[in-house]
Amino acid sequence: MSVRLIESLSTTEPLAEIFSDLSVLQAMLDFEGALARSEAELKIIPPSAARIIARVARAENFDVVSLARETLRAGTPSIPLVKALRKKAQEEDAAAADFVHWGATSQDVSDTALVLLLKKAAAILSADLKRLEAALDSLVIQNKNTVMVGRTLLQPAPPITFGLKAAGWCGAIRRGHARLHAAFSDALILQLGGASGTLAALGNRGDKVRKQVAKRLKLDDPDAPWHTHRDRLAAVVCACGVLVGSIGKMARDISLLMQAEVGELSEPGGSGRGGSSTMPQKRNPIASVIALAASYRVPVLVASFLSEMVQEHERAVGGLQAEWPTVAGVIQSTGVAIASMVEATEGLTVNRKRMRENLEETQGAVYAEKAALLLSRKLGREPAHSLLQQATRPQQLRKGTLSEILAQLPEVQTFFDARALRTLDDPEDYLGLAREFSERLCGRSRTRPPARKK
Amino acid sequence: MSVRLIESLSTTEPLAEIFSDLSVLQAMLDFEGALARSEAELKIIPPSAARIIARVARAENFDVVSLARETLRAGTPSIPLVKALRKKAQEEDAAAADFVHWGATSQDVSDTALVLLLKKAAAILSADLKRLEAALDSLVIQNKNTVMVGRTLLQPAPPITFGLKAAGWCGAIRRGHARLHAAFSDALILQLGGASGTLAALGNRGDKVRKQVAKRLKLDDPDAPWHTHRDRLAAVVCACGVLVGSIGKMARDISLLMQAEVGELSEPGGSGRGGSSTMPQKRNPIASVIALAASYRVPVLVASFLSEMVQEHERAVGGLQAEWPTVAGVIQSTGVAIASMVEATEGLTVNRKRMRENLEETQGAVYAEKAALLLSRKLGREPAHSLLQQATRPQQLRKGTLSEILAQLPEVQTFFDARALRTLDDPEDYLGLAREFSERLCGRSRTRPPARKK
Amino acid sequence: MSVRLIESLSTTEPLAEIFSDLSVLQAMLDFEGALARSEAELKIIPPSAARIIARVARAENFDVVSLARETLRAGTPSIPLVKALRKKAQEEDAAAADFVHWGATSQDVSDTALVLLLKKAAAILSADLKRLEAALDSLVIQNKNTVMVGRTLLQPAPPITFGLKAAGWCGAIRRGHARLHAAFSDALILQLGGASGTLAALGNRGDKVRKQVAKRLKLDDPDAPWHTHRDRLAAVVCACGVLVGSIGKMARDISLLMQAEVGELSEPGGSGRGGSSTMPQKRNPIASVIALAASYRVPVLVASFLSEMVQEHERAVGGLQAEWPTVAGVIQSTGVAIASMVEATEGLTVNRKRMRENLEETQGAVYAEKAALLLSRKLGREPAHSLLQQATRPQQLRKGTLSEILAQLPEVQTFFDARALRTLDDPEDYLGLAREFSERLCGRSRTRPPARKK
Amino acid sequence: MSVRLIESLSTTEPLAEIFSDLSVLQAMLDFEGALARSEAELKIIPPSAARIIARVARAENFDVVSLARETLRAGTPSIPLVKALRKKAQEEDAAAADFVHWGATSQDVSDTALVLLLKKAAAILSADLKRLEAALDSLVIQNKNTVMVGRTLLQPAPPITFGLKAAGWCGAIRRGHARLHAAFSDALILQLGGASGTLAALGNRGDKVRKQVAKRLKLDDPDAPWHTHRDRLAAVVCACGVLVGSIGKMARDISLLMQAEVGELSEPGGSGRGGSSTMPQKRNPIASVIALAASYRVPVLVASFLSEMVQEHERAVGGLQAEWPTVAGVIQSTGVAIASMVEATEGLTVNRKRMRENLEETQGAVYAEKAALLLSRKLGREPAHSLLQQATRPQQLRKGTLSEILAQLPEVQTFFDARALRTLDDPEDYLGLAREFSERLCGRSRTRPPARKK
Repeated sequence: MSVRLIESLSTTEPLAEIFSDLSVLQAMLDFEGALARSEAELKIIPPSAARIIARVARAENFDVVSLARETLRAGTPSIPLVKALRKKAQEEDAAAADFVHWGATSQDVSDTALVLLLKKAAAILSADLKRLEAALDSLVIQNKNTVMVGRTLLQPAPPITFGLKAAGWCGAIRRGHARLHAAFSDALILQLGGASGTLAALGNRGDKVRKQVAKRLKLDDPDAPWHTHRDRLAAVVCACGVLVGSIGKMARDISLLMQAEVGELSEPGGSGRGGSSTMPQKRNPIASVIALAASYRVPVLVASFLSEMVQEHERAVGGLQAEWPTVAGVIQSTGVAIASMVEATEGLTVNRKRMRENLEETQGAVYAEKAALLLSRKLGREPAHSLLQQATRPQQLRKGTLSEILAQLPEVQTFFDARALRTLDDPEDYLGLAREFSERLCGRSRTRPPARKK
Repeated sequence: MSVRLIESLSTTEPLAEIFSDLSVLQAMLDFEGALARSEAELKIIPPSAARIIARVARAENFDVVSLARETLRAGTPSIPLVKALRKKAQEEDAAAADFVHWGATSQDVSDTALVLLLKKAAAILSADLKRLEAALDSLVIQNKNTVMVGRTLLQPAPPITFGLKAAGWCGAIRRGHARLHAAFSDALILQLGGASGTLAALGNRGDKVRKQVAKRLKLDDPDAPWHTHRDRLAAVVCACGVLVGSIGKMARDISLLMQAEVGELSEPGGSGRGGSSTMPQKRNPIASVIALAASYRVPVLVASFLSEMVQEHERAVGGLQAEWPTVAGVIQSTGVAIASMVEATEGLTVNRKRMRENLEETQGAVYAEKAALLLSRKLGREPAHSLLQQATRPQQLRKGTLSEILAQLPEVQTFFDARALRTLDDPEDYLGLAREFSERLCGRSRTRPPARKK
Repeated sequence: MSVRLIESLSTTEPLAEIFSDLSVLQAMLDFEGALARSEAELKIIPPSAARIIARVARAENFDVVSLARETLRAGTPSIPLVKALRKKAQEEDAAAADFVHWGATSQDVSDTALVLLLKKAAAILSADLKRLEAALDSLVIQNKNTVMVGRTLLQPAPPITFGLKAAGWCGAIRRGHARLHAAFSDALILQLGGASGTLAALGNRGDKVRKQVAKRLKLDDPDAPWHTHRDRLAAVVCACGVLVGSIGKMARDISLLMQAEVGELSEPGGSGRGGSSTMPQKRNPIASVIALAASYRVPVLVASFLSEMVQEHERAVGGLQAEWPTVAGVIQSTGVAIASMVEATEGLTVNRKRMRENLEETQGAVYAEKAALLLSRKLGREPAHSLLQQATRPQQLRKGTLSEILAQLPEVQTFFDARALRTLDDPEDYLGLAREFSERLCGRSRTRPPARKK
Repeated sequence: MSVRLIESLSTTEPLAEIFSDLSVLQAMLDFEGALARSEAELKIIPPSAARIIARVARAENFDVVSLARETLRAGTPSIPLVKALRKKAQEEDAAAADFVHWGATSQDVSDTALVLLLKKAAAILSADLKRLEAALDSLVIQNKNTVMVGRTLLQPAPPITFGLKAAGWCGAIRRGHARLHAAFSDALILQLGGASGTLAALGNRGDKVRKQVAKRLKLDDPDAPWHTHRDRLAAVVCACGVLVGSIGKMARDISLLMQAEVGELSEPGGSGRGGSSTMPQKRNPIASVIALAASYRVPVLVASFLSEMVQEHERAVGGLQAEWPTVAGVIQSTGVAIASMVEATEGLTVNRKRMRENLEETQGAVYAEKAALLLSRKLGREPAHSLLQQATRPQQLRKGTLSEILAQLPEVQTFFDARALRTLDDPEDYLGLAREFSERLCGRSRTRPPARKK
């Protein structure tokens, strides 16, 4: 497995696999193979050379330990890789070796390899996002009538439905998915420009080679090489950042609702989830914890990539060379955050009884706004507001619900009878557009975000 | 003026104006005015109250010093603002005061105000970006044949045109502009959800009020309130981050090309630009310096916003309250970076002679790749490469150009005559697709990025 | 007042005052005045010139709006300031004007001014930290026996005392204060190096001038100018970052303990604190909210400063020019976070009854570890652990406390009687070293952190 | 080898080794072993159990792939590790298994393991820093008289010595080393607090166990457990951040001085350094590139750690779990930056001839300040300054050096003869305190920074 202990909370296995040595190496070799075959097709290099290059361009043929070591010397993985590939080709045919990497530059290899890895990652992220959206859809539909306390600044506020809360998560994740999809669509493109980005070494056949290599690698062929223009990659990294922000919000909410004193939600347990090394009673919100961990890591990695964009002339000193672990970190943390929320959402236990109890335990304090609107029609706003501030003090609410307390106040009795006041405590009567908003944000009827046209 | 000394390198005046006290205050009051008028129209509050509220909702009526002070107590500017507005309305008509802020919550005011400010900022940024694109277009066209050294890792590489370099900048900025435009289009929307985001206080007329308020404020009306879902704002902040990355790259290039030892570009001087407090000879790259300063500040502010996205339940503890200076900082730094590059580009002096001289001073070393391709056809790749490593050593190149040195080597003479070698030193002969790439990236024929459909 | 609405949650008034236009301007002028007087003393410039320069060097003599505007042109506030000061001196005596800024460079002015501002800020931060430490000391002492639930991963864990929790906060803040003090001690030094940092313009009297200017400004005189070496300032910024991290932790804890469902702490209300624009019942944790907002902003500003440290040669392009708002932002956010916690701590309501109730409501689940240690001596660890996982399931604990449930299990009855088990539920019996740890971390007996020797 | 391709530019091998699976695992096992042995010594657990636990606590006994996989389930590596260790102990003696991890909590294991890894890293970083300081010392001494252009805002300024430039680097690195040393001294401490940080499970012997475990692990025993108080670790991370900032500055300078057009420095080549995959002539500044890459990555990782400090109650949700890759990333990037600069400095080629040529090629423009001081005594400051702005225009300086041009101006001739003016062009005459400052900052006489008393 490619997951290391030190980063075992920051990635899923499939995403770690994508950035593993063999996978990175193969992506670089795929570029070299596609380049050689394309150039042979266009009669720039001999077909026999291309055949040999493509044949030996298999990751398992190479000593990745040496390559990593030499990379630190060379400042790029491409130099030792090309050297090793030449050597390997030469073992088959001395002539073939000369045509390895023909017309390309180091960054063509490393950038295209990165794009190939991102393409694989995009598919994984997207599949998990679809699962998450589907799970949230169900949650929204099942809880369209589940009443709970609204909470602003961690204090009780008028009621909402749990459906609306979940729909809010869902809407943000759908929008994030659409942004990520658009960003990937723009970024999954070939890098091929040669030493200075003019493809001079390929004479007048540069464009044909580009088209051919792009086709072989199933990538788009952009208008021009983009060596020191990292904006498309940056947009992918940012889209991950925004998405992880939305996921972090969802995970924070879940972890707060799982507090013993709140007890409204429970992440699924099972298979190693949620226990403690010393406390037998524990059921910890581990999926949320992992998503939250990602929400600490990803924002600053986004900043790292953005600051690395200031790349000098036709190849950078430092900014470029810092990118790989940044991008891998962003993608892996994004992926583990999504996967954790898939698990949490698909198995989430919603304690509807507790939600209603917590609402009732506010003793109607959360209807103070509603009461204020009602009373102010007779008493004026300020007196009503001030009366309600008094009536909702903890010591008051220990004596009865808000409506009961109000019913005992002479200034209220003048205008309202107890029955009229009793409706104050009915959450269903104060949900506003909760259901309409939920339906617009989420729910089975919605279709997937369409691919944005480039 | 609204620019303070401590931040005088981090904003333009018009953008500082947008985030000035009066402007922020007026944006909040515009929301309250539009809310009152809409509610009156829908017969939720008396028309006379709405008229009074709208009439007194002028920034100059308020004591902004007190408001700022009370904001720190209240944790939001909306509470003191609403209180002050009620007081002001009451001075006109006691009854009107009761209908101020009817059905809304603090965050409705502060978020919509922020969106209104962003709308103004969007117009400024876009206008400056158009100027920048136009100036770059001209630069590309005028320099399509201007040959210069390519530079990779700050070392000489095969030649490019200055047109291609400028087209690279231009392409990145165009793409950044399109992203920013799309992000603003999504984010310039009303916030109106009431205490818990259900609009419960407006009963069944919440949707009509929303539509009306949005229309009055010339904002879009989103599917639902988005209080703790900050992804659309985050996307704007990120789009600024990506754009500033591209601008920073351009500014870094210009500052490097202005080094006395390079001398290929010069920012325009004049009106206080580029001097020193003690050195009379100075002509400093100040516009680039200011753009680079932005490229240090903006990435981390993006990270700040992204980490602030983890907002609790229906209103956040901390994340929300950290946003305003973050957003203002991003927008202002982005704006001053764009404006600086407009000035630099519109007045840029291109020293074509020096560009060619610097190319010639490499003594042909930059054609080593070209020579390697030529020689390797006869000598094989490794011998050719190694011969050229020797021939391009500094001590060698002091004796003559690369082609002259090669012409004296017996192993070269066997296969090539001096005339064949002399074409090696011709930059025009080794520009590859420089012109084609430039034209695709930039140039007058390109149309503006179309508005992305929401 | 110097606090603007857009940043009104991110600073205190006294700290905003320090970075206000007049204060910044005066700090720059104080440098110029001290320089002139020192040079006169050393007979480098005429005493009459120095007198005039020092006399006119009053902030109120200058048009700060123009200065801010010209700063954006010049790339540094020093150039327009020196120009304006010359003009002002000239109005008194043409000869005096020539000796303004003698031998110094722009960065000498702006850096020394920044240091002078930091010195003022250091005093404010330190005073507030002392108040915070004193308030925490009291809290620790008063609550050394206040038992509450421990909470790990937001789930109940064995009991602690509130004294220990507060002592943890206190210890971290004390250590942070000591670090900040040490960093300020290193950084509050003169900048004076002239154009290239050699003080060449002062001939062989540079050292004497430095010593004199430092003495006049009550700053230390460092071994050498430090124009592009920003590590001492970076250490101050970092010390703020670490301190704000500790304060953010404290504020997060308070805001969580103030949740209605937890109800163990309450921030003080009063004078505009904690209300809502629409909900009369609200008592929001505003001081914690503001401290948490700082904990989102400061970390990335630290990153900004650190990345700005990569400053070119003898004066930077961009890194330097980005610093001022970064440093001001860090200091102001740190200060408002400390001040907020002073207020919260000094007026904190500790609901000891609720703390004990919340403990009791776990039905003894939090003693599962204790029970496991007890039972495992007879049953073996795995059986004991597994038995306790069963016994602490929510449905079980609805039937009785952990000790009651255990008392009914045959495998437990074999070894333990009900009385032995009943001690399981006694929190005082399972506090370990809570009191000892508290006393070591905090409490009145501790002395202030000693000033670190430089 | 433990270096992966994706991060091969971001670490050295020895530091990658420290954070490798086996090393991390062993550090955790070392904690468990020391805990068991200490508890046996204090008669808390049977000596036979401790012997067995300590004996099986060897990393090679465990399946690290499974452990990493289960870590993602458990949310901490400690839970699967303790489980696996119990199983392993049980294979030897069923009774022993029960005493594994006695009284400790998951975070005790993972935190102490992290500290043990940091201790190893500290030794490596310090050794390399000493080498770097020694190499810089030599450079300073060898170049105390090497004159070169000062450069402010990348434009020529009055001369400095290369000795002074190197002494500036050296001073910053020395100070950074001292800060790092102090931070490590504070942070290399035991974590042992049990479930809630009270050590309740160890009854009244908690303190003795702590003392013993600390002694066995050669760590300090802090005043109290510090589970959610991460300030000491944060200070280490920050000290790395500040140091990397100083190293980045040095690397930026070197890469700029290696530009072909400047040509004043050369990093050593050899063993895979500095070449290109396609350009035979290349000698790239790879050591600087790698150090600069670190200077992009480390600042934001510092921010990540600082924002992760906001840790809830007695164990965090997210902040804690994000730390490991952040800390490992900081340490490894810091280490590779230091090591790269060791290599660059020890083998740096200083082209003194070119330094002087570049100075001469300014044609005396860099002495304009000196000339201004001279001329202003006779002409007044403003006329002198303005005359020199004219005289230093590029078109003027093409005709002769500054002193030659001045010598031809009538207003100058009135007061100065050509001989007096000629001294203007002498760099040695305008070095101010360059040598004194160098000596104070660096040089053989300086002793190592003393360990800061805790």
